[in-house]
Amino acid sequence: MTAPAVNPRSDDPPGRIMAREMAEQPAVLRRILDAGAPRIQEVAREIAARGPRFVLLTARGTSDNAALYAKYLLEIRLGVPCGLTSMSTTTAYGARPDLTDVLVVTVSQSGGSPDLVASTKAAREAGALTLAVTNNPDSPLAAVSEYHIDIMAGPEKALPATKTYTASLLALYLFVEGLRGGDGAAAKALPDLAEQLLARQNEIRALASRYRFAERMVITSRGYGYPTAKEAALKLMETSYIPALSYSGADLLHGPLAMVDNVSPVIAVVTDGKGGAALRPVLDRLRGRGADLVVIGPAGAVERASAGFVLPTGGVAEEVQPILEIIPLQLLAYEVTIARGQDPDAPRALAKVTQTH
Amino acid sequence: MTAPAVNPRSDDPPGRIMAREMAEQPAVLRRILDAGAPRIQEVAREIAARGPRFVLLTARGTSDNAALYAKYLLEIRLGVPCGLTSMSTTTAYGARPDLTDVLVVTVSQSGGSPDLVASTKAAREAGALTLAVTNNPDSPLAAVSEYHIDIMAGPEKALPATKTYTASLLALYLFVEGLRGGDGAAAKALPDLAEQLLARQNEIRALASRYRFAERMVITSRGYGYPTAKEAALKLMETSYIPALSYSGADLLHGPLAMVDNVSPVIAVVTDGKGGAALRPVLDRLRGRGADLVVIGPAGAVERASAGFVLPTGGVAEEVQPILEIIPLQLLAYEVTIARGQDPDAPRALAKVTQTH
Repeated sequence: MTAPAVNPRSDDPPGRIMAREMAEQPAVLRRILDAGAPRIQEVAREIAARGPRFVLLTARGTSDNAALYAKYLLEIRLGVPCGLTSMSTTTAYGARPDLTDVLVVTVSQSGGSPDLVASTKAAREAGALTLAVTNNPDSPLAAVSEYHIDIMAGPEKALPATKTYTASLLALYLFVEGLRGGDGAAAKALPDLAEQLLARQNEIRALASRYRFAERMVITSRGYGYPTAKEAALKLMETSYIPALSYSGADLLHGPLAMVDNVSPVIAVVTDGKGGAALRPVLDRLRGRGADLVVIGPAGAVERASAGFVLPTGGVAEEVQPILEIIPLQLLAYEVTIARGQDPDAPRALAKVTQTH
Repeated sequence: MTAPAVNPRSDDPPGRIMAREMAEQPAVLRRILDAGAPRIQEVAREIAARGPRFVLLTARGTSDNAALYAKYLLEIRLGVPCGLTSMSTTTAYGARPDLTDVLVVTVSQSGGSPDLVASTKAAREAGALTLAVTNNPDSPLAAVSEYHIDIMAGPEKALPATKTYTASLLALYLFVEGLRGGDGAAAKALPDLAEQLLARQNEIRALASRYRFAERMVITSRGYGYPTAKEAALKLMETSYIPALSYSGADLLHGPLAMVDNVSPVIAVVTDGKGGAALRPVLDRLRGRGADLVVIGPAGAVERASAGFVLPTGGVAEEVQPILEIIPLQLLAYEVTIARGQDPDAPRALAKVTQTH
C-alpha cells in the first residue's frame, strides 16, 4: 500500500485541516443554537402545518448517516414512518412515484451533487414537500428545494467531513423537535460537553495505538447510536483505509458475527438509554467470543469492556447523545491515521464535491 | 484465526449441505412458478384493492437483502414510495407511528425471530396492512400477519441461506407484478438459466483461487444489482470470514474509494440494463486506480475487467436478473471457503433462527 507523502514542514503537519475543523465543533453547535434555531423553528412550523404523512430522506456518504439519525428521530419522537431513498430508482430508472403527502428531506454538505439535485427536483415535481439541509444556502440543491435549512458550519476544507456532520445532526434534531412543537432544550448543553470531549484527545491517542496494525474492524451499536457506528466506520475507512464494517447489534447476530474473533477488534457505541440496553446481549455474546471490545459510552459499559472512552451521558437526553458520541470517534480516525503515517486531510482518490449522476 | 475442524469422512465433505441447497434452486424456482404463483397473485390482488400508499419492508440478514430488491421493484415498477424499517424504533423505543394506508412486508426465512414478530404485530395494531413472506406457513410471523406468502423452498439446513434467498426474490417479484396487474412472464426462463449457471461451478472454482489469501474485498453494484452486492458480501463474510464491504457505486465514490487499491480486490455486479449503465463510470474510476476488478455480468462488461463470470443476460428482463446473478456469487463464497480450509456449512457462532429481541 502506498501512503500519500506527508508534508514535511512543521508548520503544516498532516491532518491540520481536519484537526482545526474538529476543534470548531463547539462553536458551530453554539452558532446553530443561537443564530440558526429561530429559522429552523419557522421552517418546521410551516412544514408541520402541511401535515406530511411519510418522510423520505435522501443523502450520500456522511450526510446519509445524518439522514439515518433523522429517521430515528422522526419515527420515535414524531411517529411518522420514514424511508431512505434509493436514489438510482429516480436518476437511473426514471421512477416517478406519487409523492403527495410526502416530505422529502435531502441532506448534503455542499448541496452540489448532481444526482441529489436531480432527485430532489423530481420529488418536488411528483408532489413532495421538499426540504434541503445543507452548508451552502446558495447551492443548486437549496435552489431546487421549497425549504432550506442552513447548517452554518462555515467552509469545510478537509476531505473527511466532521463539523458538517455534527452540525447536520443538531439542525435535524431542532427541525424534528420543531415539527412536534418542542423547543429542543435538550441540546443546550451540547456545545460545552463537546468542548470537554475535544479536550480529552490524549485518551483517544492512547486508544488509537491499539489499531496501529489492525487489518479490519467491526463497529456496532443499536438505536440512536447506529448512525454513529456507520459514520465512525466511514471516517475510519476514508482516512486510515482500515476496512471498518458497521452493523446494528441485531444484524451482527444474523451473520457477520462469524467474522468476529480475536483478530477483529470491535468498537461498540453504547448510547445511554434504550438503545444501549438493547445492545447489552450483543456485547455479552462478543465478550463470550473473546472479542477485543472497546466501548464508547457511559462509565458502567466501559468498565465491562477491554477498554473504552467514557462519555458524559448523565443528564443528556438519549436522542441528542449521537451529537456527542461521534466526536471521540472522529478523533480516533484522525489519530489512527496519523499513527499509520498517513495524512487524514488527503485521502486518496476523493474529491470534496462528489459528482455522482 | 482458528478454523472449525473439517469433517474428515469422505462421505461427509465440508459444505455438502450448502452445496445441496444451492443445487436445489432451479427446482425451487420451478415450484414457485408452477404451484405458488396463483396464490401470490391472489394475495397481490387483494392487497392492491386496498390501495396502500407507502410500503415499509422489515427483515434482517439475507432477508433484508431480499427486502431491498423488493424496494427497487416497488419504486421502479409500481411507483410507490418505500422504506426499510429500523426495527429498534418499535422494539426498543416503543414507537407507534400511524400506519394507515401503509403496507408492511416482513421477510423472514424461518418466520421465527421474536423481534420481527413483535414489530409486525405492532405494525398491524397501528393500522398497517401486513404481509409475511416466509418459508414456513406455520410460523409465528405468518400467524400475526394478515397475509402470508409461502416461498416453498423446503427445509433449509445450511447456516448460509441460499435457496431461500432466490425463492424470496422470485416470490417478491411475482407479488409486485401481481400488484400492478402483470403476469410475471419475465420469470419463466429463470429455472433453466439457473441450472445452466450451476453447471459452471468449475469457472467459479478458478475465480475463487484469486481470493485464497484476500484480507478484504469490496463488492459494488448499482440499481437492481445492489441487493446482490450486499447479499454476496454477507455470504462471503459468514462463510469465509473475509471482510467484504458492499457499496452502491455512487456511495463508493463518496468516501470508501480511498480504501480501494491494488490490495483490495473489487467485485462488480453488473446488471444488464440501466443499473449496469449507471455503474460504468464507477468501473472506469476503479480501473484507473489499478483495482483488481472482477465483473459478474454481461460479456461486454466482463471483457473490460481483470476477470469475471459471464451471465446469460440476453433476453432476460433487468428486474429479474438479480435472481440469477447471486448464484455464481453463492458458489464463489462456497468455493473460497473450501479453498481456505473451512466448512461453509458451519460458520462459527451462528444459529439458524436468530433470537434477536
